Amino acid sequence: MAAARATLPLPRVPAPSPRPQLRPFPSLPARRGAVACGAGSAAGVAASLRLGDVIEAQQFDRAALTEIFEVAREMEALERGSSSRGAGRSRVLEGYLMATLFYEPSTRTRLSFEAAMRRLGGEVLTTENAREFSSAAKGETLEDTIRTVEGYSDIIVLRHFESGAARRAAATADIPVINAGDGPGQHPTQALLDVYTIEREIGTLDGIKLGLVGDLANGRTVRSLAYLIAKYQNIKIYFVSPDVVKMKDDIKEYLTSQGVEWEESSDLLEVASKCDVIYQTRIQKERFGERIDLYEAARGKYIVDKKVLDVLPKHAVIMHPLPRLDEITIDVDSDPRAAYFRQAKNGLYIRMALLKLLLVGR
Amino acid sequence: MAAARATLPLPRVPAPSPRPQLRPFPSLPARRGAVACGAGSAAGVAASLRLGDVIEAQQFDRAALTEIFEVAREMEALERGSSSRGAGRSRVLEGYLMATLFYEPSTRTRLSFEAAMRRLGGEVLTTENAREFSSAAKGETLEDTIRTVEGYSDIIVLRHFESGAARRAAATADIPVINAGDGPGQHPTQALLDVYTIEREIGTLDGIKLGLVGDLANGRTVRSLAYLIAKYQNIKIYFVSPDVVKMKDDIKEYLTSQGVEWEESSDLLEVASKCDVIYQTRIQKERFGERIDLYEAARGKYIVDKKVLDVLPKHAVIMHPLPRLDEITIDVDSDPRAAYFRQAKNGLYIRMALLKLLLVGR
Amino acid sequence: MAAARATLPLPRVPAPSPRPQLRPFPSLPARRGAVACGAGSAAGVAASLRLGDVIEAQQFDRAALTEIFEVAREMEALERGSSSRGAGRSRVLEGYLMATLFYEPSTRTRLSFEAAMRRLGGEVLTTENAREFSSAAKGETLEDTIRTVEGYSDIIVLRHFESGAARRAAATADIPVINAGDGPGQHPTQALLDVYTIEREIGTLDGIKLGLVGDLANGRTVRSLAYLIAKYQNIKIYFVSPDVVKMKDDIKEYLTSQGVEWEESSDLLEVASKCDVIYQTRIQKERFGERIDLYEAARGKYIVDKKVLDVLPKHAVIMHPLPRLDEITIDVDSDPRAAYFRQAKNGLYIRMALLKLLLVGR
Repeated sequence: MAAARATLPLPRVPAPSPRPQLRPFPSLPARRGAVACGAGSAAGVAASLRLGDVIEAQQFDRAALTEIFEVAREMEALERGSSSRGAGRSRVLEGYLMATLFYEPSTRTRLSFEAAMRRLGGEVLTTENAREFSSAAKGETLEDTIRTVEGYSDIIVLRHFESGAARRAAATADIPVINAGDGPGQHPTQALLDVYTIEREIGTLDGIKLGLVGDLANGRTVRSLAYLIAKYQNIKIYFVSPDVVKMKDDIKEYLTSQGVEWEESSDLLEVASKCDVIYQTRIQKERFGERIDLYEAARGKYIVDKKVLDVLPKHAVIMHPLPRLDEITIDVDSDPRAAYFRQAKNGLYIRMALLKLLLVGR
Repeated sequence: MAAARATLPLPRVPAPSPRPQLRPFPSLPARRGAVACGAGSAAGVAASLRLGDVIEAQQFDRAALTEIFEVAREMEALERGSSSRGAGRSRVLEGYLMATLFYEPSTRTRLSFEAAMRRLGGEVLTTENAREFSSAAKGETLEDTIRTVEGYSDIIVLRHFESGAARRAAATADIPVINAGDGPGQHPTQALLDVYTIEREIGTLDGIKLGLVGDLANGRTVRSLAYLIAKYQNIKIYFVSPDVVKMKDDIKEYLTSQGVEWEESSDLLEVASKCDVIYQTRIQKERFGERIDLYEAARGKYIVDKKVLDVLPKHAVIMHPLPRLDEITIDVDSDPRAAYFRQAKNGLYIRMALLKLLLVGR
Repeated sequence: MAAARATLPLPRVPAPSPRPQLRPFPSLPARRGAVACGAGSAAGVAASLRLGDVIEAQQFDRAALTEIFEVAREMEALERGSSSRGAGRSRVLEGYLMATLFYEPSTRTRLSFEAAMRRLGGEVLTTENAREFSSAAKGETLEDTIRTVEGYSDIIVLRHFESGAARRAAATADIPVINAGDGPGQHPTQALLDVYTIEREIGTLDGIKLGLVGDLANGRTVRSLAYLIAKYQNIKIYFVSPDVVKMKDDIKEYLTSQGVEWEESSDLLEVASKCDVIYQTRIQKERFGERIDLYEAARGKYIVDKKVLDVLPKHAVIMHPLPRLDEITIDVDSDPRAAYFRQAKNGLYIRMALLKLLLVGR
């Protein structure tokens, strides 16, 4: 399992796609009426985001990211405009029903999706314990479960413990499927909200200097982020991690092939002084098994604290996928450059945007 | 327990009722304002379905089934008409609140009820772990729980591990109660959707030839189906099951008393060649206890596969209450006669119909 | 733990507040736009209920209670008026989203809050297993969880196993927090519904004679009720409990300081003959640990049964926070003076009132 985790499936889709067209998810036929969306009212500018399922970060090219982020901004404006009065909420997804089918608990992600659906007037069917639900416990296949649940809903948000489960579900379902994390595999909406947050906080993505800190070997978050950010120009990435959890070669090779500069460093303060974004991650105890000593050594090594803030440029930000333990000290929270709770909130806007695009189009 | 399961409570209500009038559930007084519903606009055709609770398959006579199925067809038309746009959904149950009180998990059934309620604009209160909820764990009676929950909602959908629990709940509550399965007892909405599926797929119920396959001793599904189908004319039933899980005598005697022809067979292919419906069921491992050898022998004996399809008439269908393990092979799924996922979807329409009839009438 | 429980935090806020003004929760700054509400249409009567969070019973003075109860009566009228047709429901909280963040299960309380929100047209995000949710299990602080969840919702209802958790959550969140019970600490909405029930059933609060029966040492319910009722005039309280679970001195001293008469009695029948309200409670087995013998002796000592009804004044009522075991016999239920299920229903109205006051004001 650990070995398998070391080679996440990212490099399977290395071929860079031609820019302005969203690649439909490669192995899946376009099953639904495609959602075409004009990028403007002018004739001939018919950009077209055809979004069928959201399965992995690799399915999005730069044009698709741009369009999703535009819709996310609209969602954010909608939310802020209506926050003083509940009655001002959008009802654009009224009558639509989303099933959150979670085979392992992830309350943060589940609540984010369910809030997104409800903020747009939609309804939700929830199951948090799909793994124990009688059908799965009795040996029903994921495919059979999907066929049943798609009869009850308009879109399925799937969280699963097995890599590849979302792809299997999407291949089965006639309604859209969103991958909310499938084991060591993918968590594409997290990757999208991370990139969106950088753009929102810094104002641009091209030319970004990004420090990835912490567990770079096991975190699917930083791996997906590295993959997506490589779609932009003049990116520089610094890897800062304990030796036992260094970034794997597959990502490094991919970055090089995309013309992304990267280097490894053991000096967090020096990196922080040069970056636009410090992306801190949690050292995951569960990856160390019996070797608690290695875990303890690794977890205390790179902490984001006041000293990091002291050298961090004024315009830069600290990000973190959360939950955080002590890898960012509490006293950092009050600094305006602490962006991690804004980042979590951006997850709401990104998920609202995806639900809208998948269900009613732009 | 096993012995108790062997004699399910079906024969308690053997007296055939006079046709066109729905028997109100026998031991329960009509507590609510009865829902009268004209079967047409013409004077004098005032058929009246008075539906107070849905407790067991036996409470429905043929006229009641006909009316429920008519409403289910309307629900199906509604669903299909609006599926392209969420905004076209019915809001007929807007402002109504359904409590799903599940003392044992059954996500499939729960999601089906909750989808049904939401598809009609209603709202849902969910508890999936009622058994562990602090009140029940502290020793509160079911009756006390029902009295509390009925204060919060307009209708209760109860799943319980004890036979008779739904009847007790209905006797307590002043709002409608729907039995979503009470232990080895009843699961009347499953029985309704099974009969509805036969009518939808074959076009009629009178004259049907039905093969019941698999675990006929323990499955409440096939027992309830046999009971309900006996209300129609010229029915022929074939029982195909391993010896250890043969249909019990009580149902056989009941069928005979109703003039239903039945026979036992060990030749699935021959039965399949003569039937309109093959109703396959799962051999339930949990019924065999330590005798894994008996289970293994029983489960592999009658499999619905391509060979069955080869002899099955063109107009006939394969049904299954799901979940399915390997008693229907995957390659059967793509045959148009594989009706089991349509059957699952019919559960949505039947439950929509029941909720509408119970809450606002026809 | 047991010792800690013996000194509940009530005496921390002993200072009686000046009457007609609601004390904002002491240690929390007024963070939100205050909700002002005129107590009448006449100029100059601008009473102002500024309700930011609901954390503990002590935060409410008599004027605040009066206003909350007035809104609860409006909610009750609304409910009764619309009960025949779902469509008549209020939609005053349409577009608002409540997160129920429960770190320990309490289905009764959760369903009551969720029903309250939905009865007013609002929406709900639910998590019943917040303690096991991956973030908390991974060591995330309550504060971090609150910061994330407040990004998804408009109000948080928190149930927690630690005393003081609600206060911490309220100090963190920029949206309102309602304490739905924090361990041995507070359960203020239960206290409010208890006092509201007395007023609804008896018609007044001043001059009430109240018998508190059962486990008076551990029950936060009776302790909070004693605290709140002391805000009214000419109150008399009788304590009737087994010796091992007698009312603690802190409450007795507080009552005395407020001019409330109280006495202890071992004669339930004599007390019942003099009271307006008998408030029975469950002897909680879990408080006795190994001493099952003490528990068994205590639980059977004071039972509310037909003999109690025989001496109870005609206008008086029996209350109980539920769940009940055998401390009130079943045959009492049919007596019109059995108010405990009406009391449970009042929880719905009180919670509707609080949600309305916190989200949109009066």
